[in-house]
Amino acid sequence: MSTDNSSHWDRLWIGARLATFEAEGDSIGLIEDAALAIRDGRIAWIGTRAQLDQLRWTAKVTTPAEGLCITPGLIECHTHLVHAGNRAHEFELRLRGATYEEIARAGGGIVSTMKATRAATEEQLLEESLPRALAFVGEGVTTLEIKSGYGLDVASELKMLRVGRRLQSKLGITVVNTFLGAHALPPEYAGRQDDYVQLIVDEMLPAVAAEKLADCVDAYHEGIAFTREQTARVFERARQLGLPVRLHADQLSDCGGGALAAQFHALSADHLEYTSTESLERMAKAGVVAGLLPGAFYFLREKQLPPIAQMRSLGMAMAVSSDCNPGTSPLASLLLAMNMACVLFRLTPTEVLRGVTMHAARALGLSDRGVLRAGARADLCVWRLRHPQQLCAEYGVHKPVETLAAGHALPQ
Amino acid sequence: MSTDNSSHWDRLWIGARLATFEAEGDSIGLIEDAALAIRDGRIAWIGTRAQLDQLRWTAKVTTPAEGLCITPGLIECHTHLVHAGNRAHEFELRLRGATYEEIARAGGGIVSTMKATRAATEEQLLEESLPRALAFVGEGVTTLEIKSGYGLDVASELKMLRVGRRLQSKLGITVVNTFLGAHALPPEYAGRQDDYVQLIVDEMLPAVAAEKLADCVDAYHEGIAFTREQTARVFERARQLGLPVRLHADQLSDCGGGALAAQFHALSADHLEYTSTESLERMAKAGVVAGLLPGAFYFLREKQLPPIAQMRSLGMAMAVSSDCNPGTSPLASLLLAMNMACVLFRLTPTEVLRGVTMHAARALGLSDRGVLRAGARADLCVWRLRHPQQLCAEYGVHKPVETLAAGHALPQ
Ligand SMILES: [Zn+2]
Ligand SMILES: [Zn+2]
Repeated sequence: MSTDNSSHWDRLWIGARLATFEAEGDSIGLIEDAALAIRDGRIAWIGTRAQLDQLRWTAKVTTPAEGLCITPGLIECHTHLVHAGNRAHEFELRLRGATYEEIARAGGGIVSTMKATRAATEEQLLEESLPRALAFVGEGVTTLEIKSGYGLDVASELKMLRVGRRLQSKLGITVVNTFLGAHALPPEYAGRQDDYVQLIVDEMLPAVAAEKLADCVDAYHEGIAFTREQTARVFERARQLGLPVRLHADQLSDCGGGALAAQFHALSADHLEYTSTESLERMAKAGVVAGLLPGAFYFLREKQLPPIAQMRSLGMAMAVSSDCNPGTSPLASLLLAMNMACVLFRLTPTEVLRGVTMHAARALGLSDRGVLRAGARADLCVWRLRHPQQLCAEYGVHKPVETLAAGHALPQ
Repeated sequence: MSTDNSSHWDRLWIGARLATFEAEGDSIGLIEDAALAIRDGRIAWIGTRAQLDQLRWTAKVTTPAEGLCITPGLIECHTHLVHAGNRAHEFELRLRGATYEEIARAGGGIVSTMKATRAATEEQLLEESLPRALAFVGEGVTTLEIKSGYGLDVASELKMLRVGRRLQSKLGITVVNTFLGAHALPPEYAGRQDDYVQLIVDEMLPAVAAEKLADCVDAYHEGIAFTREQTARVFERARQLGLPVRLHADQLSDCGGGALAAQFHALSADHLEYTSTESLERMAKAGVVAGLLPGAFYFLREKQLPPIAQMRSLGMAMAVSSDCNPGTSPLASLLLAMNMACVLFRLTPTEVLRGVTMHAARALGLSDRGVLRAGARADLCVWRLRHPQQLCAEYGVHKPVETLAAGHALPQ
């Protein structure tokens, strides 16, 4: 068999509609009545049924796929889903009219998540985070980014990142670990923000790099968080350690975050509600992906929309994600973020679908996924629907019929 | 065994946190470290563990329930989930800037759903609607209201209602069928709206009643839909036939819908964004439940909030539901509607939890459910969470560990 000139595949789908994300322009690269074959965890062949008929092939498993859509496995490129505790009580207090001070005095806010996360053992942290990770996997997510940033001391940040690694092996998907030590100032450093940045640069980042626990470094650059200079110090250290960077930028005000991200050739700058035209132009020039997080916009009832029209006219890649976090976006659903990107940000379903596949892959620096292309990782979602746009237009009803990560079917 | 004076139960949970909705005032009626027993499809006993220890009892199955919360089965009291086709293409067109006229010319709008629904066989309609119904059941919904209103001719309206009845037997939950012939004007009656109302009154309603296919009658009273007089004719006929009524009221403008609902002692009036103080007062006096539908508000990006503060001060019962429909609220998720009721309408989690249990039951005229009380139907959701408020505060991660309808565990 191995000496003839036919193709030998592990699995073949025939008759599906494929959303390849391989076409030029504003499109999802749809191929109707198509076939897709995988082998050794990679996509081996893609074409129409007519083209398949011209080939000689064998496949260990052949699946008739009429009525099914195949898309790349979804890529969730921005979450804070590893954390302990919950802030439901704070949510109720706020809706009953409590002020931020009252909530802080009642033990709420990011410090409450930090305390619970520090107090949890690695095992407990894994157990508490697992249902959130499973929620994403159940929606067809095969690449899941998770940030640290609720430990805010060396040991606790490392603990969070180890949980990310363990989720990867437990779930059989790719977990991209992002070190976000520069998320907030821990209370023991009150009034000594520069000292905390020094701790990040001198101790946290080297420890994280030594254990190879992070794939990327992120920072929260904002009036209420870290300054331009502090963020730059973190990014310079990351560069020395060979780690790519990303940025939480311009969420609540224009702090020049987009420009800072461009200066450091960040993979992405996320939020961007207040980013200036000048910053956007620099981002576009530097190839920085615009990360859109409609969940936080929804949850905080923001009024300032990100400058989508300008992003479009600059030809910027836009990624979409949930920002899943306990405080400002407690939504463990990429499909919901996709719907909100349409309804609240007025992205088209086509833009959103590109934003959770090809562009989300770019936001993570991954060039082997997010498209259906021979040679790409066989991260696939098989859906029973007429048009992939339905994933954006109709919420709550679409779950993959099957999800594969590197060619392996994930448990449903 | 049957002659001794101990209690004999089918199943008993010990150590759970119960949200009974039996307390006075603004509360969920929480009992900590509690026990709940069921027998013959009804709740047989509720109390604390200490009270249980004073009793003599046997139970066929005893479940240790530390760390679990038990709530009444959730009640989704307003959906249009039975329909054929989808409007994802229209969704994309609209986001690309198409006008309503362009969408209508491209075959979109409610008429497209009507055509698909008329064209579908009863079997196809069941098959297309089932995933949406299952999405609700998967969230813990044990009572599901479904409206007709996409058939708009006698045979197609009956077909829709039959699908509702079949969903009930298929899923093992309660499906409340609502006849909504007065949903929209079918194109063949263009310019003859009164004739269509005559058809509803003379043919549809008697046929629906003869086959006992509806539990309730609804109408869409709005500038763009049916007038006060037309709605009143439908309601009068419903009254003659012994069917309770509900109303889609004041969604886009103040049409006096709330007052009309009060006049007919409707079970509920739903939407209510523009309802006047006077109408609200009449509703409160007549005991009409206020049905809140944040999904449509979200999806249509409305700015006018329903007058929640006035509803509160009038002591009105507020129900919360998804309005699941293909055009203006394509969201098959009650839990999402609950989150949106908090985030967008600023209801508290407590109000929302009451809105999908005790008050939703009242909106459907059902007095045997929506609370945990001895004698009530054993419609139960068992959740692994610390506080029931988490169901509102954290979206995407909570699914019931177990759901029971009339004492029977539903397939997960
Ligand atoms: Zn974030
Ligand atoms: Zn409705």
